[in-house]
Amino acid sequence: MSSEFELIARYFARPAGNAELGVGDDCALLRPTPGALLAVSTDMLVAGRHFFADADPARLGHKALAVNLSDLAAMGATPRWALLALALPAVDEAWLADFSRGFHALGERFGISLVGGDTTRGPLNLCVTVLGEIAARPLRRDAARLGDEIWVSGELGGAALGLAHLRGECRLGEPEAAACLARLHAPEPRVALGRRLAGLPRVAAIDISDGLLADLGHMLERSALGAELELARLPAPPALRRDDALARHCLLAGGDDYELCFTAPAGDHAAVLAAGDAAGVPVSCVGRVVAGRNLRVLDAGGAVLAIKARGYDHFID
Amino acid sequence: MSSEFELIARYFARPAGNAELGVGDDCALLRPTPGALLAVSTDMLVAGRHFFADADPARLGHKALAVNLSDLAAMGATPRWALLALALPAVDEAWLADFSRGFHALGERFGISLVGGDTTRGPLNLCVTVLGEIAARPLRRDAARLGDEIWVSGELGGAALGLAHLRGECRLGEPEAAACLARLHAPEPRVALGRRLAGLPRVAAIDISDGLLADLGHMLERSALGAELELARLPAPPALRRDDALARHCLLAGGDDYELCFTAPAGDHAAVLAAGDAAGVPVSCVGRVVAGRNLRVLDAGGAVLAIKARGYDHFID
Repeated sequence: MSSEFELIARYFARPAGNAELGVGDDCALLRPTPGALLAVSTDMLVAGRHFFADADPARLGHKALAVNLSDLAAMGATPRWALLALALPAVDEAWLADFSRGFHALGERFGISLVGGDTTRGPLNLCVTVLGEIAARPLRRDAARLGDEIWVSGELGGAALGLAHLRGECRLGEPEAAACLARLHAPEPRVALGRRLAGLPRVAAIDISDGLLADLGHMLERSALGAELELARLPAPPALRRDDALARHCLLAGGDDYELCFTAPAGDHAAVLAAGDAAGVPVSCVGRVVAGRNLRVLDAGGAVLAIKARGYDHFID
Repeated sequence: MSSEFELIARYFARPAGNAELGVGDDCALLRPTPGALLAVSTDMLVAGRHFFADADPARLGHKALAVNLSDLAAMGATPRWALLALALPAVDEAWLADFSRGFHALGERFGISLVGGDTTRGPLNLCVTVLGEIAARPLRRDAARLGDEIWVSGELGGAALGLAHLRGECRLGEPEAAACLARLHAPEPRVALGRRLAGLPRVAAIDISDGLLADLGHMLERSALGAELELARLPAPPALRRDDALARHCLLAGGDDYELCFTAPAGDHAAVLAAGDAAGVPVSCVGRVVAGRNLRVLDAGGAVLAIKARGYDHFID
């Protein structure tokens, strides 16, 4: 049987071109870019909660890194380095080979190097830490101001609809199901968009992991403001039929899309559209920041919708 | 029931004086010291493997951070920032209060701020990431050279002896048991010593988490050299009777002591002793680096001991 150290060497010890010292010592040694802010985030994914224990390991490797890159994107940071801590019930080399392939493939696309980590035996658990750098203005959650426009990137609800399909709560056709499951299993972090937005004068941002209402709610709470959203303007995938309750749930409270929700002054409307264009990601203006602390959603006729669930909370079932 | 966000705020969102932005956004924002190298490490502790599920939570909070600080110590880094990802089977506020108290108390002693993290539900799992800075020379594992003296800090074997006591494999008196269990449950990271050693011309170091032979073995492997250790010179706690097999096991293969093992040129012998003095930690010269790739242990008569187990490996039972 392979030892922990052989496993690390085989699957995780890649040359880290942008590190002074990568996997294999007590610490990784990194040389920060002079003058840049360092952005750091960590996310833990647990089998049975964030993914199915029998999930495809290559997609899981992708997702474990993607959700962390999404945090860097939501800060406007350029990804640089990652660490991976991994608890496995048993050594399964085929699983490790596939997992590390998915992880490294996404890392290479975003120029991020795996520089350290830990492996141990235990219930399947993936904890990724990412470090990025910001030369421009970080996209802080508390930067929203009264009258700002509220934007989202890409499409919302696809991942939640894919999950509903897996659970038998709806039935999607073959191509629609594939598109929604790709959103669920292999989210695309909006790194290029985040970097472009960090070049604008004042943008507040968060990534949508727990659902639009919940995550926008965090941003509003930090900014001490409220919001009005227009349901009809929320960008949805074709598979999502707008008129039913499931669709509404997916759009407003579905997690796992990893799109960005952000605010910017109305005067920067054209600049935000240009940032989306330059990043190759559609951006949609979906509402505006208002006084008070309420988050209201208006239907097509302008009536306020009654909202029950704001989103996913890991400690409320 | 408290939400994830309320829990984070209550127990983990302390003001981080040395961060631009701490807990509560997509990323923490840090301002690295100009010119310093950044040292980063992550360690995952799993219930039932690294600690008992009913372990005292305050001591667990201490240990989860201590084992990471020990990695910074072994690199010669000054601790700066930490992130904590935590999976809990259920919300237990008393547990969280005690755990965070133990964690923060050690953090304050070493000037390290908790700047980010993640909480989720799942089998009990603690993943800590630490960041430190090095203005001097990092203590790399591959820096050992032929003829170097081999040193260890403090005492070896206490933690393993405490574990043997808990398992009923030996019987210690009350004060001896307390001392050994303190080593096991509340290790003291050798940060001050590591920083002093980083001021010497050439020191290679590793922290002893898996046992002296295993960890010295990693350092020798990276340096492509062998070693001779003298059993009689290994510093042991009074509870450890040197003449039995258990004692030998604890000294050579017992993990969890979190002392430093390091090498330095023989000409720096006095400087190493002075570094230990300045850091307030005894240091013992226990052997020397030799040609070849073997790690030999000599008994008091100079005979080579037969060694079976090199130490603890998380994937070999």
